[in-house]
Amino acid sequence: MSHRYTIALDVMSGDHGASVVMPASLGALRETGDIRLLLVGDQAVIGAHLRQWPEAMQQRVEIVHASQTVAMEELPAVALRNKKDSSMRRAIDLVKQGSADACVSAGNTGALMATARYVLKTLPGIDRPAIATALPSLFGHTHMLDLGANVDVEAEHLYQFAVMGSVLVTAMDGTEAPRVGLLNIGSEAIKGNDRVREAAHLLEKSPLNYIGFVEGNDVYCSDVDVVVCDGFVGNVALKTSEGVARMISSNIRTEFKRNWLTKLRGLIALPVLARFRERIDPRRYNGASLLGLQGIVIKSHGGADALAFQNAVRIARKEVEANVPQRIDKQIGHLLRQEVQG
Amino acid sequence: MSHRYTIALDVMSGDHGASVVMPASLGALRETGDIRLLLVGDQAVIGAHLRQWPEAMQQRVEIVHASQTVAMEELPAVALRNKKDSSMRRAIDLVKQGSADACVSAGNTGALMATARYVLKTLPGIDRPAIATALPSLFGHTHMLDLGANVDVEAEHLYQFAVMGSVLVTAMDGTEAPRVGLLNIGSEAIKGNDRVREAAHLLEKSPLNYIGFVEGNDVYCSDVDVVVCDGFVGNVALKTSEGVARMISSNIRTEFKRNWLTKLRGLIALPVLARFRERIDPRRYNGASLLGLQGIVIKSHGGADALAFQNAVRIARKEVEANVPQRIDKQIGHLLRQEVQG
Repeated sequence: MSHRYTIALDVMSGDHGASVVMPASLGALRETGDIRLLLVGDQAVIGAHLRQWPEAMQQRVEIVHASQTVAMEELPAVALRNKKDSSMRRAIDLVKQGSADACVSAGNTGALMATARYVLKTLPGIDRPAIATALPSLFGHTHMLDLGANVDVEAEHLYQFAVMGSVLVTAMDGTEAPRVGLLNIGSEAIKGNDRVREAAHLLEKSPLNYIGFVEGNDVYCSDVDVVVCDGFVGNVALKTSEGVARMISSNIRTEFKRNWLTKLRGLIALPVLARFRERIDPRRYNGASLLGLQGIVIKSHGGADALAFQNAVRIARKEVEANVPQRIDKQIGHLLRQEVQG
Repeated sequence: MSHRYTIALDVMSGDHGASVVMPASLGALRETGDIRLLLVGDQAVIGAHLRQWPEAMQQRVEIVHASQTVAMEELPAVALRNKKDSSMRRAIDLVKQGSADACVSAGNTGALMATARYVLKTLPGIDRPAIATALPSLFGHTHMLDLGANVDVEAEHLYQFAVMGSVLVTAMDGTEAPRVGLLNIGSEAIKGNDRVREAAHLLEKSPLNYIGFVEGNDVYCSDVDVVVCDGFVGNVALKTSEGVARMISSNIRTEFKRNWLTKLRGLIALPVLARFRERIDPRRYNGASLLGLQGIVIKSHGGADALAFQNAVRIARKEVEANVPQRIDKQIGHLLRQEVQG
């Protein structure tokens, strides 16, 4: 069997390390015949898991030993300086060397971004890489960026995020001209800040399918494909959404547990509620892209389970297949040339 | 019957004007015996509604004629300059003159804030008024501010928001030392921006019950009573939450409507789902406080129905009863004196 894509997995990072990444690896191999995996981390730990795998699956992986692990609370600068043999760093190194087409890590976002940026470098014309993810919306999904890599940005950066997000959606979903919206506040209140207004001017002149300002609720409305914002706002929006969804689920459970009658009603409603839950299951959306780098790096949620981590691997594979960094490079280069000529 | 509190209602503003505010007024009068209402707006319109009211209720209101209405999309500066006889402006004037103890408007947020600030002035020591509201949380509710009045703030302003929010929660809920959290991003990512870090230093030294940074999901966790942020972030968080809640409700409905069996299951689950919906019904939370002014102004959602608007009147009455502006004035004065002495 030919393996078209090689993906490096940081086995040791995240809240659960190997106990999640190893089953996720096996799941990913079973799901897709055209990938092989480089399992990066403690040789002994990975080996112990591997011995329980079917022989055929064992042959599609290779262990790359790394003696260190970046802790979830470790400061990016400290990780970068002191953890040169960490599973996270080694996985990114493999991408840099061309031994892997992409890497996936559930490690700490700050350290992952800092290391990826240091090792892989940004694409020419990109000042700041950004973190993007898909979120469920009414009839499909919406991509949003930045989700926390950049807390203080200029209008020009928001513009670059818009370009990267637009390319990502075209590459991943096949959408021809993704609708790009700039996250802003109330149409009736004071309209946003200078930064956002300035970014709007840049986007209006761009060849992107810019549809104007969108508000927080529009993220979930299916009226926009790419929502652009700074990393502070994006991160708050993402976490707030998680909080609301969790509160609602918990409230529904509480109501159904109130007494024997509501429990009975709950039992009857269960199959329908299960379908609904599956639809907005955050595990199905796990896997954020670090965009703007010379290589593919996917960040899995730190607390992801095997199913969720497997989705992050799926995204990595898809980005390799779609040549996401090359496409961003081409689009940014194209726009830069336009600016020079214009 | 003695009427302890007089509340001025802007009858004409909002998406629905008198058709919502008039039934809400009647509902509020029936609910609470100790209020009388000043109904501000077009005399003919209000009169037509009033004639259908019971005599006893008619005696508890007074019409204050205003010839203009501020449109929902009107720019604050334009409204302030050209709409001196608007129902919004007159309602605020009544508070200024001492004829009303508070006012409620469903009009455009920007114009309401600008007019209230111009007419009532801010309390000494408050640089920027802020908009605060309660949001449902897992086991109760959380107050959040600012929700859109200030898009570019300094650390000192966030500090003032924290003081105002803390006073509001004590006044409204009777909570002795409300837990105040500063909204920030991921504990594992780069920690926030300079502004937020600086505000944290101010709060650590303050007599408030400051519990540290909180993230978006904590707003709904019942682990914090007051969440402080700038108006851009707060507005996005609020709107995003609305969007998620609406998407989830819609998804649940869709799943139950799939076929006759799911419809049957839905019918059985209905009473439980209705209770749950009531619990997080945004109408029960309608009514945001414009804090930091020398007077009480409550902003109702523009699209509020009568039930929702009635809740905004309830909040206005409660803030009058609890002397919210005087309490904020006292607390801010106290802190300012401490700074001078310190």
